[in-house]
Amino acid sequence: MHGWIFDICEMIQNHPRLHRDATRIIPPPSPMLCGCCGVVRCMFLHLSADRSSKHLEYSKWKRSPYKHQSNVICSFLRLDLLPAKNGEEVTKHFLQELLNILLAYISKSLNRSSKVLDFHHPHQLKEGLEGFSLELQDQPDNLEQLLVDCQDTLKYGVKTAHPCFFNQLSTGLDIIGLAGEWVTSTANTNIFTYEIAPVFILMEDIIFKKMHSIIGWSEKEGDGIFCPGGTMSNLYSVLLARYHFFPRVKTAGMLALPPLALLTSTHSHFSIKKSAAVLGIGSESVFLVKCDERGKMIPKELESSIRTAKSKGLVPFYVNATAGTTVYGAIDPLNDIADICERFGLWMHVDAAWGGGLLLSKRHRMKLQGIDRASSITWNPHKMMGVPLQCSVILVQKKGLLQECNQLCAEYLFQPDKHYDVSYDTGDKSIQCGRHVDIFKLWLMWKAKGSEGFESQVNHCLENAEYLYYKLKSRKDFQLVFQSQPEHSNVCFWYLPTSVRNMPPGPERDRELHMVAPKIKAKMMEEGMTMIGYQPLGDKVNFFRCVFSNPATQKEDVDFLLDEITRLGRELYS
Amino acid sequence: MHGWIFDICEMIQNHPRLHRDATRIIPPPSPMLCGCCGVVRCMFLHLSADRSSKHLEYSKWKRSPYKHQSNVICSFLRLDLLPAKNGEEVTKHFLQELLNILLAYISKSLNRSSKVLDFHHPHQLKEGLEGFSLELQDQPDNLEQLLVDCQDTLKYGVKTAHPCFFNQLSTGLDIIGLAGEWVTSTANTNIFTYEIAPVFILMEDIIFKKMHSIIGWSEKEGDGIFCPGGTMSNLYSVLLARYHFFPRVKTAGMLALPPLALLTSTHSHFSIKKSAAVLGIGSESVFLVKCDERGKMIPKELESSIRTAKSKGLVPFYVNATAGTTVYGAIDPLNDIADICERFGLWMHVDAAWGGGLLLSKRHRMKLQGIDRASSITWNPHKMMGVPLQCSVILVQKKGLLQECNQLCAEYLFQPDKHYDVSYDTGDKSIQCGRHVDIFKLWLMWKAKGSEGFESQVNHCLENAEYLYYKLKSRKDFQLVFQSQPEHSNVCFWYLPTSVRNMPPGPERDRELHMVAPKIKAKMMEEGMTMIGYQPLGDKVNFFRCVFSNPATQKEDVDFLLDEITRLGRELYS
Repeated sequence: MHGWIFDICEMIQNHPRLHRDATRIIPPPSPMLCGCCGVVRCMFLHLSADRSSKHLEYSKWKRSPYKHQSNVICSFLRLDLLPAKNGEEVTKHFLQELLNILLAYISKSLNRSSKVLDFHHPHQLKEGLEGFSLELQDQPDNLEQLLVDCQDTLKYGVKTAHPCFFNQLSTGLDIIGLAGEWVTSTANTNIFTYEIAPVFILMEDIIFKKMHSIIGWSEKEGDGIFCPGGTMSNLYSVLLARYHFFPRVKTAGMLALPPLALLTSTHSHFSIKKSAAVLGIGSESVFLVKCDERGKMIPKELESSIRTAKSKGLVPFYVNATAGTTVYGAIDPLNDIADICERFGLWMHVDAAWGGGLLLSKRHRMKLQGIDRASSITWNPHKMMGVPLQCSVILVQKKGLLQECNQLCAEYLFQPDKHYDVSYDTGDKSIQCGRHVDIFKLWLMWKAKGSEGFESQVNHCLENAEYLYYKLKSRKDFQLVFQSQPEHSNVCFWYLPTSVRNMPPGPERDRELHMVAPKIKAKMMEEGMTMIGYQPLGDKVNFFRCVFSNPATQKEDVDFLLDEITRLGRELYS
Repeated sequence: MHGWIFDICEMIQNHPRLHRDATRIIPPPSPMLCGCCGVVRCMFLHLSADRSSKHLEYSKWKRSPYKHQSNVICSFLRLDLLPAKNGEEVTKHFLQELLNILLAYISKSLNRSSKVLDFHHPHQLKEGLEGFSLELQDQPDNLEQLLVDCQDTLKYGVKTAHPCFFNQLSTGLDIIGLAGEWVTSTANTNIFTYEIAPVFILMEDIIFKKMHSIIGWSEKEGDGIFCPGGTMSNLYSVLLARYHFFPRVKTAGMLALPPLALLTSTHSHFSIKKSAAVLGIGSESVFLVKCDERGKMIPKELESSIRTAKSKGLVPFYVNATAGTTVYGAIDPLNDIADICERFGLWMHVDAAWGGGLLLSKRHRMKLQGIDRASSITWNPHKMMGVPLQCSVILVQKKGLLQECNQLCAEYLFQPDKHYDVSYDTGDKSIQCGRHVDIFKLWLMWKAKGSEGFESQVNHCLENAEYLYYKLKSRKDFQLVFQSQPEHSNVCFWYLPTSVRNMPPGPERDRELHMVAPKIKAKMMEEGMTMIGYQPLGDKVNFFRCVFSNPATQKEDVDFLLDEITRLGRELYS
């Protein structure tokens, strides 16, 4: 070590404001002078708690009074990172320390004894908690502080990978998928020309072919594009259907068209209505078709809705069938709906954002029989397949339609005179122009799991749902929202406090029952050991919806959830 | 070490198909039996080339004949990763190895002597290069192979962080932004309710306030939402403007509205036309306003286009002014356009996707004077501010409009009876419902750089542009597409081979010149040392467009670019 390093070393150890454990110092690759105070900067290390260990950590001066403007010595700033000259070492140490933070977080997320969330109200977080301030300054913070900020951001967030997080359709954290995301963000490119994303564009192509064959489309059929979420995928489907029947709409707009009608079930996702509103068709053009007790569209009702729309002078053109509704997980009778669509000459879309994953399971895929007859399909690998958010796709049976519908041939973006096959430039197929690379994590997961791996993952989730279903069936303090066995991994139920259980059915009981789930959920979030969603639906008052998509979740977690609801319920209603 | 470890160790070293350097073996946390062959699995390590180093690396059996089905021993599979019992060690080693790969890639990307890209045609990559196969199997691959796949994916991609990558508006790789992405993907959540993204939702709020104040909006004004790219942000602006003037459109569609007209310049981004097509207004409703030689909208032409639209019975309602056009980097005269919009009662949108970053520079922000008068603004921090892709925002002056325009109040998604302030649930403000978390990387970068850091980064890029501009001005073998100094970091120019230089102006020279840029680009991509885009525009034949947004780029890189074009040009035209 150079002499000056020892000098600084001593200076640090004698300095009252610096960390006392700073016993080691590593020399920077070359002496660097701080721009503001002119003193040599270097990186401080201290031996970790276990002094025999060779693992060195950055000293954490987190919220110490130590500041850059201190005239003694400066910690590293982001300007010391690459692309700074000799920035490799600092970059390496910074990202290594980040990795350690992320690994600790991942381990904690999967540890059943740790909390799912550490809840705070917005005003509390805004005021700053234990030195974690969200406010931004004009002056830069040092790297140490940034690492602490990363740690705090995770700490006050929600551990969506936790085996007891049942709140959303997307749960869990696939390590391979995560690795895929890290590679993607390091590649930092845009997937709109082959020129700047050659590998990713071909991976999309390969995954599409895989998905087409799983659906049952022939090799001559099928196209697709990755979208920022299922709502966007559904919006694409309406856009494509409209263009397919009325290509004039692209240039002349809706005024050149007759008044249109879309059909979807009362249990379907609100994105069909949203698409109608956005695309200028109007949300009133959406006809909501009645469902059975189980949440499945009734084919006869679809027919009569089509006739109603026609009798009002509207032109029905699009039917959305859902494979896996958000709340009940219901799958519409696809073949019956396909028959009707064929008879009336309508575009059949299947919103399989949630249910698409079942296609990978030999045991469950027949539930989606008829899906190959769809003109377009939404499928979100970020849901049942456990791919990190976001990963959603719109698949289209008719080749070339995406391109025709969306292309504007802006030559300043997509040059036709390039030296490679420009049919691989996908930018003009999309609404978005530049697109985020959502393919790599899915491709890598497929490599890692094989189709078999996805299959066992899906089966596992549905077994958990079945387990919960039978558990609930046998209990008197719980009531299922519908009696039949779940088709997907959604299980819907009420918790019945004794007071409610003793009330006769009727509006008074409903009023009381409606308040149970929100009350329990509020307490659940404050205690933070598990998390599950609730909602009302149609004439059903607030009930819990449990969904399984996290491979980490086991039967013991299902038991824990019920115990926890019971415990909280008893506390609230004793 | 246990006895069985030694046995395996010996087995490996004697095994003809295994790596000879495998001299070390670390025991798995507990003996694990392979599901298919029943043999103990463990992790092999070998000393790195420098045997004195303590740094251990996984042995890389990449494309060795070693396979999982081998009856000898199995490498680790993704099932050994978390959430597997005792999966911490394998997860740690896997992600550590990935980090090493990513660090090496980052260093290489910033190394001027390495290539920007290693070009291959689609069919070559599809066939598989040096064992890199894109095809997917039903059987899983082992973790070693997956790491090699990650390495290969990066190898055959494009190094967008390279100082000599001039091809896109988004270039460079900010290490802090990258760290932000890694944290985001580890948190793996959706930003649509406070419940599951409390910290991220508040960060959005804070960044919006920051952006509003930079623009010059008062505290009472301003709203916004992060979008998947600038095209989507622009689409939001048209959607909002339409709803603002004609709220009936949401339910009743375009048929309830008069025929509309939108106005934008001939140099503007094609997303305005795309929005009109998607939203059912029709692309023919877009009036392209003439620009001056510099690519800036001519206010008088805007006025006359508005009158033309009116005379055709259309109702103009929306004007897009561009602050930083894609090709020329031109900034429309915002104040003049604002005056006209006020006079005619039109919505003024500013597409500052590219130019927004200039607002952070005291030296350049006056170029966007008048932007505070806009009703909505698109601003992509993933462009000039160097935030990793994607990070784009639509800012709206009128509070509450986003919510009104997009909300459908689906109670099954957004429950009003939660125990916290549900005004923080942003899902109903967006088209997308679930949204990717694009905020954290920006927030973290702001913490790291401060506003000052962004300012010096922007100034640096514009200095590079100025340097290139003056270089070109002094050369006879190059010609500027327009003579005035660039307003943004775009510099547009032709390379003139001697043969072209000697031709008189006219269609023949144009035909010849039109082919120069594609020819040079093709060769440039094959050699891979730099990358720059070209395009025709209006009556201008193919020309190069150089843009600067990478803080790593220095004047020496600008010199290199010109030398390289000259060298390739001479080779092609000698």
